[in-house]
Amino acid sequence: MAERPAVKIGVLVSGSGTNLQAILDAVARGDLKAEVRVVISNRARAYALERARNHGIAALAIDHRQFASREDFDRALVRELRARDVELVVCAGFMRLLSPVMLDAYTGRIMNIHPALLPSFPGIYGPRDALEYGVRISGCTVFFVTEGVDVGPIIIQSAVPVLPGDDEETLAARIHREEHRIYPEAIRLYQEGRLQVSGRRVIIRDADSASESLALANPRPR
Amino acid sequence: MAERPAVKIGVLVSGSGTNLQAILDAVARGDLKAEVRVVISNRARAYALERARNHGIAALAIDHRQFASREDFDRALVRELRARDVELVVCAGFMRLLSPVMLDAYTGRIMNIHPALLPSFPGIYGPRDALEYGVRISGCTVFFVTEGVDVGPIIIQSAVPVLPGDDEETLAARIHREEHRIYPEAIRLYQEGRLQVSGRRVIIRDADSASESLALANPRPR
Repeated sequence: MAERPAVKIGVLVSGSGTNLQAILDAVARGDLKAEVRVVISNRARAYALERARNHGIAALAIDHRQFASREDFDRALVRELRARDVELVVCAGFMRLLSPVMLDAYTGRIMNIHPALLPSFPGIYGPRDALEYGVRISGCTVFFVTEGVDVGPIIIQSAVPVLPGDDEETLAARIHREEHRIYPEAIRLYQEGRLQVSGRRVIIRDADSASESLALANPRPR
Repeated sequence: MAERPAVKIGVLVSGSGTNLQAILDAVARGDLKAEVRVVISNRARAYALERARNHGIAALAIDHRQFASREDFDRALVRELRARDVELVVCAGFMRLLSPVMLDAYTGRIMNIHPALLPSFPGIYGPRDALEYGVRISGCTVFFVTEGVDVGPIIIQSAVPVLPGDDEETLAARIHREEHRIYPEAIRLYQEGRLQVSGRRVIIRDADSASESLALANPRPR
């Protein structure tokens, strides 16, 4: 099989961009054949834009408040993404809901990551909600964005323990560590043409699944 | 600290009783100081009753259909449990919802196990619902029963991967293996007086938590 070319991605951000950094690091290591064509933030001060510029990547601020509607904002996003030949849109801490304008322009080609084991704890307070519920295990989920909040087909998940004494910050940090492992991996699977969406499920060709005997129990049984 | 006496448990079942067996095995191994005082099934033909009899344990069938209401059925349960000095009620594949009659008689002293990582996939089809949703990770949850379905404070959880090719049976089998590890452990924590419910959370004294660095990613990142 011929080697597939690098996937051209556009990264949507609102904040510091640690997942963007994980993606850039994976590219630098040679683990991921991707070209970050543009980073777009709805907040001009997002540190992610600075990260992008430090890497010589086009960095745009598009303030959603300057648009009359979600659709108008999305049309601006689509215009910029298409102008740079973006094939795959990667949401990395992007705090805006996408409208059908984006979803139709990039059907099946928008990924997002969520700091919980979906379908548990969707929305913007994943770690906090997990702590308040009192679960012993949480984690993160990479999925394809569809209409609705955090309900799209799941690509990869990773589970981590919730520990006694955890607060929102310590739990979020533990989850973020896993995000930085699984997000570049999900993009790699896409770049290699190994992801196929079938209804609600994502089928991965030649998936390197976790061991059948692996389990994460918390607290640990004797 | 003086050694605590064995906890007197009553096990409620509806089916084959593999979790009952796991509990009896843990007792036999010396991992759990518990005395199973009675096993009660709402189905006369449940194999769990035979398991109990094989171990010389009192085994009762109480057919819920012979009672005019859920409350009347529960009054019969309470009567039998109290007659045998049961301190902790362990639901193990018991397919009846408990009414306030049982919940008030055994407040904070009824455990249940569910084949999903709650709050995901409550109800009677945990493995099937997980497969249909397309999650990569599922598992099981031991919790204290409260009003509502599968919403009580969580004691232990264990996560397992969902693998390509899984059907309901293979996924359920993988989950059950973990159930058989964590249910005896949850009872052991109770017997040792180490569980304290605080709002929605269960605080475990001297919890042997999973390692901070442990994570279960599926599929595995490079």
